[in-house]
Amino acid sequence: MELKTNSIADDQPNSDRWASLAFTLYHKIKTQSPLIQCITNFVSMDLMANTLLSAGASPAMIHSIEEIPDFTPHVHALCINIGTLTPNWLPAMKAAAQLASKLGKPWVLDPVAAGASGFRLKSCLELVGMNPTVIRGNGSEIIAISKASIGSSKGVDSSHESMDAIEAAKSLALSTGAIVAVSGAVDIVTDGTRIVGAHNGVSMMQKITATGCAVTALIAAFVAVDPLHAFEATASALSIFGIAGELGMDMAKGPASLRMHLIDSLHGLDQAAVLSRLKIANLQ
Amino acid sequence: MELKTNSIADDQPNSDRWASLAFTLYHKIKTQSPLIQCITNFVSMDLMANTLLSAGASPAMIHSIEEIPDFTPHVHALCINIGTLTPNWLPAMKAAAQLASKLGKPWVLDPVAAGASGFRLKSCLELVGMNPTVIRGNGSEIIAISKASIGSSKGVDSSHESMDAIEAAKSLALSTGAIVAVSGAVDIVTDGTRIVGAHNGVSMMQKITATGCAVTALIAAFVAVDPLHAFEATASALSIFGIAGELGMDMAKGPASLRMHLIDSLHGLDQAAVLSRLKIANLQ
Amino acid sequence: MELKTNSIADDQPNSDRWASLAFTLYHKIKTQSPLIQCITNFVSMDLMANTLLSAGASPAMIHSIEEIPDFTPHVHALCINIGTLTPNWLPAMKAAAQLASKLGKPWVLDPVAAGASGFRLKSCLELVGMNPTVIRGNGSEIIAISKASIGSSKGVDSSHESMDAIEAAKSLALSTGAIVAVSGAVDIVTDGTRIVGAHNGVSMMQKITATGCAVTALIAAFVAVDPLHAFEATASALSIFGIAGELGMDMAKGPASLRMHLIDSLHGLDQAAVLSRLKIANLQ
Repeated sequence: MELKTNSIADDQPNSDRWASLAFTLYHKIKTQSPLIQCITNFVSMDLMANTLLSAGASPAMIHSIEEIPDFTPHVHALCINIGTLTPNWLPAMKAAAQLASKLGKPWVLDPVAAGASGFRLKSCLELVGMNPTVIRGNGSEIIAISKASIGSSKGVDSSHESMDAIEAAKSLALSTGAIVAVSGAVDIVTDGTRIVGAHNGVSMMQKITATGCAVTALIAAFVAVDPLHAFEATASALSIFGIAGELGMDMAKGPASLRMHLIDSLHGLDQAAVLSRLKIANLQ
Repeated sequence: MELKTNSIADDQPNSDRWASLAFTLYHKIKTQSPLIQCITNFVSMDLMANTLLSAGASPAMIHSIEEIPDFTPHVHALCINIGTLTPNWLPAMKAAAQLASKLGKPWVLDPVAAGASGFRLKSCLELVGMNPTVIRGNGSEIIAISKASIGSSKGVDSSHESMDAIEAAKSLALSTGAIVAVSGAVDIVTDGTRIVGAHNGVSMMQKITATGCAVTALIAAFVAVDPLHAFEATASALSIFGIAGELGMDMAKGPASLRMHLIDSLHGLDQAAVLSRLKIANLQ
Repeated sequence: MELKTNSIADDQPNSDRWASLAFTLYHKIKTQSPLIQCITNFVSMDLMANTLLSAGASPAMIHSIEEIPDFTPHVHALCINIGTLTPNWLPAMKAAAQLASKLGKPWVLDPVAAGASGFRLKSCLELVGMNPTVIRGNGSEIIAISKASIGSSKGVDSSHESMDAIEAAKSLALSTGAIVAVSGAVDIVTDGTRIVGAHNGVSMMQKITATGCAVTALIAAFVAVDPLHAFEATASALSIFGIAGELGMDMAKGPASLRMHLIDSLHGLDQAAVLSRLKIANLQ
């Protein structure tokens, strides 16, 4: 495959349209405050909830299988993340995913460390088979799922650049019907046919735990307010989060202050910052 | 019911007495460092522990049923919060609540998202029946429990103002014997007869996850140092937390920095700030 | 036993050697990014992961027993912490500890609140019997394990100074073969024969939840890059964390900002700060 990243200059009108769309969706979240159910890992619950709140959404960390029939029908999107998976969490994840699919509600899967064990990979594949609207992982995770092989990642951090995972992402998108997003120095988003690169963000975000989980939750909020355009919503969420990271980095002295300033920036984003900073370009 | 909020000016001597009482209790926590057992949700454990530590209390997040007979007799108060409830957590919550009641130790219930599902509401009502000293929720939660009906809240955020829940709160207080507190733009505290409004705090605190859980834990610490005056201790805790939020807001640039400055401010509160800022007024 | 803390002045050449060693190990973590598996409590997962990331290590909060055979062989060190223990977590802790020992990988135990209940103490003693490389606790915890008695601590905060636990620490080190570290105003490290005091850190670190858990995870990272010198790696980790706390305290206004600045400082430590601040002295 030949890869050509259009230069930002060539692609300016396109980027402007993306920026305008992204800010519109961000604004919609503020005004509609979509209810986002998260069945997620213990490490990320706090940052994920604060990310959603700062963006204007209403997070609900409700994961008991007993509650799904009563609660899930009221949510606007569902986020499932397998970070600290044990077998007793799987039935609720599956029940929620199935109910969301059945009710036509968008749901987003974060296959954390998919290749770290046979148990984890098998669980992931079961969830992948339940029609997620979006799957967001790092390069190693997307490769592990796409190839259904363990050993591709040794932990939660990626040993592959996002660009290495482009073919795996396209193939996964085509086989599942999901939008697939790969985080990295450049974030990749594909529906199997279209493919864009989102260039915002700063490298120090990788030194903060659960930023990947947090952006997956943010994708759920973006898809919640535009469920018919999950491709655009996903790329927008990744860019908005990246811009918040860039603005945060201007004030940060290290990873912990970056985490704080990122969330503050996500809360207070203005249109000018989004228009001047957002960089999404076609890749192919 | 006729509602009349006394103006702060009219009520100044009363507010001064409240401020003096609140600071005395805050100071007592610093000097006595009460041991507070928290059986709580995964989202709030970190903020709850840090809130208690910054106020001078000693938090213990110990929730195994095996440990309750050995450990709970040593605590000065117990805080139970059902935020991320699953059925396997209930036996320990009930055992701890029953033991605390039996030993005459104060315990505080936070009925997070009480109306979100039948399972959650039923669990809440069982705990409500175990003689909590204080119940603190938002408007939707208190209405859900008081009416024993699901659907009053769709998630963890309230769809009711605290003022809407006044009758529900009074009725719940009378039927249970608990002090009932309703968080909102104005925090309401009632024992079923007396009713006060606590006017401190800033609206951005709602954009930080687990601030409700954190103030419930702080109530437990206040009640621990003055168990015979749970009504006064509850209103004091809500006001002190609100004042810490106001002081934090002076330095904050968004919800994440507010969270940090709130905890810093709670740690370093001085009497002058409490005396000049605290606003508690009779409501009726 | 006669205790003589060598004055820093007398001990300067020794302290310089320690500082040089500690910075070398810190630098090794940055370049090797060891993979650290943490089976830990719910309160500390976020801070522990962020501490490891900021120091340059790669944390993996993976605790399902199903994953241990696939995953644990790839890690460079294991950290087990019993903070929010329930019986269902124990089998995975034991399986991981046994596998790590069998494979010759270093593992570190944090016996949080060991004396708070019979269940907790018994669980601790079982883990202590599985050849931990390092055991790090506060004074009350080390005394509880060494004497195998409950009631030595009433919660997670220590009711003993680290100095009170010196004999218990030496005896525990001799009976288990582990390096034993006792946190306190002075951190103590012993292998049963050698004993040093690490004098860095600030008292406000005790007002931040999970700083003890975080430094135990950091010890795991230090031991991971120098597994043959666990005594030196342990003392180095405690000192480096303490220095990050001191640098953080220069910018902090309370416990929450200290937490942030501590992590930022741990990320950006330079050799000059370590050389001028590190204070490790022989104690005996």
